[in-house]
Amino acid sequence: MMKRVGIVGFRGYSGDELLRILSRHCGVEVYLMDHRSDAGSKPLPIGASGPVRIAATADAAKSAGLDCIFLATPADVSMELAAQFLGVAVRIVDLSGAFRLGTVENFKRWYKEDHTQPELLAEAVYGLPEISRDKIAQARLIANPGCYPTCASLAIRPLMDAGVVDLAAGIVCDAKSGVSGAGRKPSLKTHFCEVTENFSAYSLLDHRHVPEVLMNTGLDVGQFSFTAQLIPIHRGILETIYFRAPRINSAAELMDIYVKRYGNEPFIRLYEPPAVPDIASVVRTNFCDIGLVFDPSTKRGIVVTAEDNLVKGAAGQAVQNMNIMLGFAETEGLL
Amino acid sequence: MMKRVGIVGFRGYSGDELLRILSRHCGVEVYLMDHRSDAGSKPLPIGASGPVRIAATADAAKSAGLDCIFLATPADVSMELAAQFLGVAVRIVDLSGAFRLGTVENFKRWYKEDHTQPELLAEAVYGLPEISRDKIAQARLIANPGCYPTCASLAIRPLMDAGVVDLAAGIVCDAKSGVSGAGRKPSLKTHFCEVTENFSAYSLLDHRHVPEVLMNTGLDVGQFSFTAQLIPIHRGILETIYFRAPRINSAAELMDIYVKRYGNEPFIRLYEPPAVPDIASVVRTNFCDIGLVFDPSTKRGIVVTAEDNLVKGAAGQAVQNMNIMLGFAETEGLL
Amino acid sequence: MMKRVGIVGFRGYSGDELLRILSRHCGVEVYLMDHRSDAGSKPLPIGASGPVRIAATADAAKSAGLDCIFLATPADVSMELAAQFLGVAVRIVDLSGAFRLGTVENFKRWYKEDHTQPELLAEAVYGLPEISRDKIAQARLIANPGCYPTCASLAIRPLMDAGVVDLAAGIVCDAKSGVSGAGRKPSLKTHFCEVTENFSAYSLLDHRHVPEVLMNTGLDVGQFSFTAQLIPIHRGILETIYFRAPRINSAAELMDIYVKRYGNEPFIRLYEPPAVPDIASVVRTNFCDIGLVFDPSTKRGIVVTAEDNLVKGAAGQAVQNMNIMLGFAETEGLL
Amino acid sequence: MMKRVGIVGFRGYSGDELLRILSRHCGVEVYLMDHRSDAGSKPLPIGASGPVRIAATADAAKSAGLDCIFLATPADVSMELAAQFLGVAVRIVDLSGAFRLGTVENFKRWYKEDHTQPELLAEAVYGLPEISRDKIAQARLIANPGCYPTCASLAIRPLMDAGVVDLAAGIVCDAKSGVSGAGRKPSLKTHFCEVTENFSAYSLLDHRHVPEVLMNTGLDVGQFSFTAQLIPIHRGILETIYFRAPRINSAAELMDIYVKRYGNEPFIRLYEPPAVPDIASVVRTNFCDIGLVFDPSTKRGIVVTAEDNLVKGAAGQAVQNMNIMLGFAETEGLL
Repeated sequence: MMKRVGIVGFRGYSGDELLRILSRHCGVEVYLMDHRSDAGSKPLPIGASGPVRIAATADAAKSAGLDCIFLATPADVSMELAAQFLGVAVRIVDLSGAFRLGTVENFKRWYKEDHTQPELLAEAVYGLPEISRDKIAQARLIANPGCYPTCASLAIRPLMDAGVVDLAAGIVCDAKSGVSGAGRKPSLKTHFCEVTENFSAYSLLDHRHVPEVLMNTGLDVGQFSFTAQLIPIHRGILETIYFRAPRINSAAELMDIYVKRYGNEPFIRLYEPPAVPDIASVVRTNFCDIGLVFDPSTKRGIVVTAEDNLVKGAAGQAVQNMNIMLGFAETEGLL
Repeated sequence: MMKRVGIVGFRGYSGDELLRILSRHCGVEVYLMDHRSDAGSKPLPIGASGPVRIAATADAAKSAGLDCIFLATPADVSMELAAQFLGVAVRIVDLSGAFRLGTVENFKRWYKEDHTQPELLAEAVYGLPEISRDKIAQARLIANPGCYPTCASLAIRPLMDAGVVDLAAGIVCDAKSGVSGAGRKPSLKTHFCEVTENFSAYSLLDHRHVPEVLMNTGLDVGQFSFTAQLIPIHRGILETIYFRAPRINSAAELMDIYVKRYGNEPFIRLYEPPAVPDIASVVRTNFCDIGLVFDPSTKRGIVVTAEDNLVKGAAGQAVQNMNIMLGFAETEGLL
Repeated sequence: MMKRVGIVGFRGYSGDELLRILSRHCGVEVYLMDHRSDAGSKPLPIGASGPVRIAATADAAKSAGLDCIFLATPADVSMELAAQFLGVAVRIVDLSGAFRLGTVENFKRWYKEDHTQPELLAEAVYGLPEISRDKIAQARLIANPGCYPTCASLAIRPLMDAGVVDLAAGIVCDAKSGVSGAGRKPSLKTHFCEVTENFSAYSLLDHRHVPEVLMNTGLDVGQFSFTAQLIPIHRGILETIYFRAPRINSAAELMDIYVKRYGNEPFIRLYEPPAVPDIASVVRTNFCDIGLVFDPSTKRGIVVTAEDNLVKGAAGQAVQNMNIMLGFAETEGLL
Repeated sequence: MMKRVGIVGFRGYSGDELLRILSRHCGVEVYLMDHRSDAGSKPLPIGASGPVRIAATADAAKSAGLDCIFLATPADVSMELAAQFLGVAVRIVDLSGAFRLGTVENFKRWYKEDHTQPELLAEAVYGLPEISRDKIAQARLIANPGCYPTCASLAIRPLMDAGVVDLAAGIVCDAKSGVSGAGRKPSLKTHFCEVTENFSAYSLLDHRHVPEVLMNTGLDVGQFSFTAQLIPIHRGILETIYFRAPRINSAAELMDIYVKRYGNEPFIRLYEPPAVPDIASVVRTNFCDIGLVFDPSTKRGIVVTAEDNLVKGAAGQAVQNMNIMLGFAETEGLL
């Protein structure tokens, strides 16, 4: 039987990508849920009709019989709406940072505001399927991971579990993202003329995605240096991750850690060293690609990982989570 | 003796370009005139100091002894400030559309607001040096031409004066501009993700630069079709201009019209047919480049013209006008 | 039953797009046919295997039991291979210009070489489904249309059939394309640094796609001015088409001509005036979008049309043609 | 008295930039020296004449009375030409890697060919003015530094001299460059469609610029991890440099090391922490900009440095070296 799913925030880049993906999903009907103004809509072709539109309210969700709602909204809106929708028994996948950081203290520190739904924060399940697939299946409320932390965590966690990283030297993650990661709201930072033919670093040592990576990997803050940087492209993330692995003797041995871990994962692709992915490899897919090089004589390793920030880093992963929650094949709509 | 010049609107793209050009000008000292908030300023290097800052008021202009002020401001601000500054005998080069269209009726029709300074509108001199150099030298208030009309007028006027165009068939001007033409104020239209890997037409048959071209060339509205289009680049304009010239027998004969007209112009460069300019040829210069092709058997001609919208299409031409008004060499600061 | 289809030239941009589209097609198995060297291949993920590889020979095509072969090759290669493959009764969709221009004289004039397969040239069917769907169904050899002529012809043909264009004034088609239209072979013209932040016109009054448009529309060369221009984007074409329509009284009346003609076409989308498409509307789709404006007082009209040069302008249209030839739903793999 | 200078390789990006800079230099006359074919030249405007053209031979250099020649050529050509030109007593600034690495063994290891001029290699002075200004003044043959090593060395050397880096943890330099760094010769790697909307890493742990940085800083190979990456922009380099500084207590203290070292350098600009430069800050200038952040609690520091790879990373630095050699003000032509 078809499931009914709603999207709040469908005019943003993640919301638009959700619509694109769900339109190809064989098991769902999509409802667009109007929350704010209609600015920025493109004209429809003559004779075309888009998906059904309903209000972004609990009543409307109940009337429509929605099974799941995606919140592609800012954290403060997500906190408010999640509470309302859960009240009428709809499952939620929230793409904001509202429910990711586990504690109200952590949320306050990184998002500079008070958390208004501490019980939901405690209940929410962090939705990185490759790490916590079982919990996701049982969840009412999914905190969909941040774009940067998704590929950073997928790259680092196996190394940590294998215990091969020299933690005294620490890990450096130099991350680069396309501009859609900054959202669709206009700002000087995303003005075409400020971005084209430029490249810039921001939030150095202070990015709110850092605590997510620490949480997912077990690293502490002194062991992990992270820089976010803006590439003049629409979409895509590439992260270059540096570390030392004193007991490893070859790139093949290092890659083998990933092969053992991710050999059956449908959305992780690995490359024979020294091949590494680029952003073009993953754009418009739900894949996280991982490649690496290693220098046995000095024990230095570099892992390069890439994803589309709007797909595996947002909407694609959100649908992957929905698939697990609602009992669809995990890859439905995503290949 | 050094002249003192002020810039209002120095945080916009045209204002920033004025500062860049005037910093290389050997005859002027620059004053930045604060009119609105300081948003969007970049940090200065340690130990660096920028130009002097004063208020954008008639008093401050008088105290500083300014000889000329550039208004890189919206039309409504320019109307207000031009009146104030002329009251203390400072010459003005206005980069907005406030004083370009000759009559209050024309202004009202295209700018959708009332003109608050009709006497100044009547007095203002349209500052396209290649067409009205003598009047510019005497002016108190220059209406600096629009970016699209500058190269369109420079390309079309010689053909009209030579009487070679088939006016029944009319002239088509297909114009393309970089994003800086839309200004620095953030909007969805200038968001990087909306512009990159895209190309779009806007203001079809209805662009406010059309009446400027008609005024400069003598064409009437039914004889001139114009489309503005957005290229995913920072700066530069290219216009492709189509017409029929029944009495012309070769591309060389057509180019000769331009050579006779512009042979001594310092900022117009012509090419041997069939070479035509591209945008890279003119970026960061004050040149307007012109090339053409012609098919003698069907009498169809195409003129391709290019300029940097921020230089010959705005700040560079403004400085060229100032040079003429203040008695500098016309090319000072511009080569 | 599944059909078997081969791609020659799968490393080029059109060939790669063919593979992408055919991988989603439910009725075909794909064979990559090796014709030249393996340069430029990307590494495959660990454990991945691509499509089957066979030689680009008639024997290999026969052994594999291929039903249809796509030639994404230069015109000289297509002439040679088409003859070989038709000898073993495989249907051909050729994406080059080899079989488009009807006569050996026309081919010689525009492609500067002799046609080696005049019989096949005479037999080939020009594959623009919206104009010649019935002939395509019966064809052995399809000449897939050029990228520029596809949307130019789709935009102009209805106007010509309706007899509304002032032919004395003629039609201007100002066309702009992304860089993939120039192919994947490296050249200075396609070097990133020559293209980024640039925009240039080429082949003025002399583009080899002009005769295709004349053939499809009935215009003669003196009635049609065409300029091709390079946009700094990967893919997409936008064409701005200017004309006069003396008997038309409104934009709605003009659009009605298109609605009547294309109302049931699956791959043409029309817009209510004055909305016009941009390139982002069509990228990665097989749609040709059409919008227009019209000024009743001067009878000037502008039609704006957009397509993805690699899809409706190449690989997508090729699959659309194959669908018609092999009896699939025309939209299979393309929505 | 005017000096006469020649450029070999003037059609490449560095050569073109040399011409641009030297055209503004008040003390030199430029000669373009033809070494290979004339491919890729743009048409000149009617009436324009470019610089004088002579052959790239010792005889022609002697006849013209050249004082200095810039070799913007591949390493093998530079080796051959340097020997010839030094024979007629012309000073050389070589922009290739031919004379940078000190020993024939080092050259062979990283450039995979034999060095044909070992005496010249021994004599050549590495031309990084901020580090070896005095030797440059006396040199006959300058090895102009590589683009990546210039800003990496300027950023790291002061930290090494101050002895503040934890060498056991090492230094990570994550470097990103515009496409012009790959030269003007067309290749698939620099094809617009392969670069736009992409970002890729290359030469991981194996880039030939690594030994230059080691040589300039005193780091050994196990202490320095370097990745080169391609940004879809024309020009500019940004490097993000990670390290630990156990004895440093604040960002201000760290920046003070740079202020003391570079306070009087004309081409190094420093920023108050936490401001860091971006690529737009330095494009088309000879500046190397340096900014930093530091976390006192964990002793992690990040230095961000930016330059234009064609100016401070190539042609600008080459002219700076020429200015020192020929006795001009070091900043002549460069501000």
